[in-house]
Amino acid sequence: MTIHTPVATSLATPIALQRPHVIEFGAGTAPLAGRWAAGRGFRRILVVADAFNAGRVDVLGLEGEVTVFGTVKPEPDVPNLDEALALAAEVKPDLVIGFGGGSAMDLAKLVAVLPGSGQTLHEVVGPEKVAKKGAALMQVPTTSGTGSEAGTRALVTDPATQNKLAVQSLFMLADIAIIDPALTLTVPSAVTAATGVDAMAHCVEAFTSKKAHPLIDMYALEGVRLVGRFLGRAIADGSDIEARAGLSLASLYGGYCLGPVNTTSGHAVAYPLGTRHHIAHGAANALIFPHTLAYNAPVAPEKTAAILAALGLPASSRQEEVFASAHRYCAELGCEMKLSALKVPEDDLPVMAGEAHAIRRLLDNNPRDLSRDDILAMYRAAY
Amino acid sequence: MTIHTPVATSLATPIALQRPHVIEFGAGTAPLAGRWAAGRGFRRILVVADAFNAGRVDVLGLEGEVTVFGTVKPEPDVPNLDEALALAAEVKPDLVIGFGGGSAMDLAKLVAVLPGSGQTLHEVVGPEKVAKKGAALMQVPTTSGTGSEAGTRALVTDPATQNKLAVQSLFMLADIAIIDPALTLTVPSAVTAATGVDAMAHCVEAFTSKKAHPLIDMYALEGVRLVGRFLGRAIADGSDIEARAGLSLASLYGGYCLGPVNTTSGHAVAYPLGTRHHIAHGAANALIFPHTLAYNAPVAPEKTAAILAALGLPASSRQEEVFASAHRYCAELGCEMKLSALKVPEDDLPVMAGEAHAIRRLLDNNPRDLSRDDILAMYRAAY
Repeated sequence: MTIHTPVATSLATPIALQRPHVIEFGAGTAPLAGRWAAGRGFRRILVVADAFNAGRVDVLGLEGEVTVFGTVKPEPDVPNLDEALALAAEVKPDLVIGFGGGSAMDLAKLVAVLPGSGQTLHEVVGPEKVAKKGAALMQVPTTSGTGSEAGTRALVTDPATQNKLAVQSLFMLADIAIIDPALTLTVPSAVTAATGVDAMAHCVEAFTSKKAHPLIDMYALEGVRLVGRFLGRAIADGSDIEARAGLSLASLYGGYCLGPVNTTSGHAVAYPLGTRHHIAHGAANALIFPHTLAYNAPVAPEKTAAILAALGLPASSRQEEVFASAHRYCAELGCEMKLSALKVPEDDLPVMAGEAHAIRRLLDNNPRDLSRDDILAMYRAAY
Repeated sequence: MTIHTPVATSLATPIALQRPHVIEFGAGTAPLAGRWAAGRGFRRILVVADAFNAGRVDVLGLEGEVTVFGTVKPEPDVPNLDEALALAAEVKPDLVIGFGGGSAMDLAKLVAVLPGSGQTLHEVVGPEKVAKKGAALMQVPTTSGTGSEAGTRALVTDPATQNKLAVQSLFMLADIAIIDPALTLTVPSAVTAATGVDAMAHCVEAFTSKKAHPLIDMYALEGVRLVGRFLGRAIADGSDIEARAGLSLASLYGGYCLGPVNTTSGHAVAYPLGTRHHIAHGAANALIFPHTLAYNAPVAPEKTAAILAALGLPASSRQEEVFASAHRYCAELGCEMKLSALKVPEDDLPVMAGEAHAIRRLLDNNPRDLSRDDILAMYRAAY
């Protein structure tokens, strides 16, 4: 078997960066939401939140006519979006605020652009189909994992097919993101571990992608370093605000990696755990992470060693050592590393491998080809 | 004498990042200017450029009604701005494009916000005095040094006092920056050296500032690394597009450092060389750089060693070694390192030291106090 090491992309290769005009980052920044909105003269505000965050909207210090849509569901579906859109049609907000995790922020993006646009959800699915900017948009994340606050993509589940409908538009980029790590202090340790590994996986997969770019590599490697330095601390002591800030920033950098580069095999192999067996996205990624990192090591030896070093682990690019190190790292964070323990039926593994293998938009950018059998071998090794 | 090492700022400390919504980076991206403008429906475009760049506006691929103000001066003054504003009042552009170095981009910022605002230049001098957003703004840098393309500040010289009037406003932030390193291929090697060291100085001074922040430190250190890796290459071969890209990115990162942190003693001590003796900004900074870096080394030993290592020099924090290394580095790039050779009269040094010492907005953030005599000693050592 010949393994080709990909040629590194030159720094001169074109790349597009998309960013909120303003990011307010740091402990205690949440009340800047109200100050910013008042300074810009926004008077009709619609906050899009899950039930937990709907109960603490007052931390944003908003003034004027504030309406809260407080029933965002995890992995929101089209009916959930329609409820939010119906409320927006009544309120006619000049400012929409996403307040929560990726689900709330994704819905807020669509609630900002669809009302009054004459476009339906199905007309804007795909890249850059949204016709124009709608209401102003603010994003206030309350978890560290998705990086959705700085992104242009929104995912909604089609209940008929269980497929994710993906809308991507520069018009859904936030005007301002307020990233206050104090809002993440209440995240329980198991969720902190899973979402932290998810943020790290965004960075690792973009770093080793065929589409990797030296400009994005900086964010990728720094994101991995932040997770290596702070994830263990945040799990051990959830009230460690500096550690929480480190994870908030790692999540943001993971988001920076998703836009122009995106993930590869790790996310592709992990997806069927979520879609077929309802395993949380972060937990699925943590379980798969050592398998794909080790699989890619022969074609990306320097980057693999750099990832391990950034996590604070011994630098290596030998497959067995890479696997053992990464596996131990995730297990020690408290992540479940066995598929059998997550009640995935063993006879479903071949179907899962087929589904993962079909996710070409991710797998085509993996630095090393994966066959359906390669994926099945990973599932069996993880069983 | 007691020298206090400053306490490091926590990552959780609040900081604001301000960014263009879109940055298109890379060789050959210049024609995206026209595509972006057409896609957004802009029809009346005013390009603000110096004479050289006015002669190659066609590289931007603009369509519609395009007017060029092609007489931006180096270090533009109020009459120069007034000419541009008069043209803007006629054209009533919906998009203003800054096309050139820091001077063109700074004027473009003011041309975007002042016409039709009812505000005069003097009413907007200072932080956040501009009342509202004006025309859309695109910035296309053609040198690597200022990082003005991603900034919110514009400097214009008051001809009566020779003072710089500084306007800072989030409304002057570009909607899009197009950073095409191919546009810098024609920059002569002496200017490449001086502007490259200037970009590096923005990074170094922000990195060692009392206001340094770990989030900005990443850009600072990466900017120094890029200069260390690519400045020598770009000077040796001006057509090396990857090296030019590295310097374009270092300049951008220097700009990222200026906003929330800013420079300290290096720029303060260098300013009188420009204001009193018309030495180019970059050349002045290169000459002063080893002196302030070595002066600050005792209070920032780790960061000083990291800077030298990032430049590819032996890591050290001992004052004499730091000075010798940094001095040799600049001299080998071809920078003039003697004040006497630049025809600064020796008897002006005390007045220059007094003027530099008065720049409190920068010196108050230097990690180590500088007296007027400390500054004078630097000038004498550099003479």
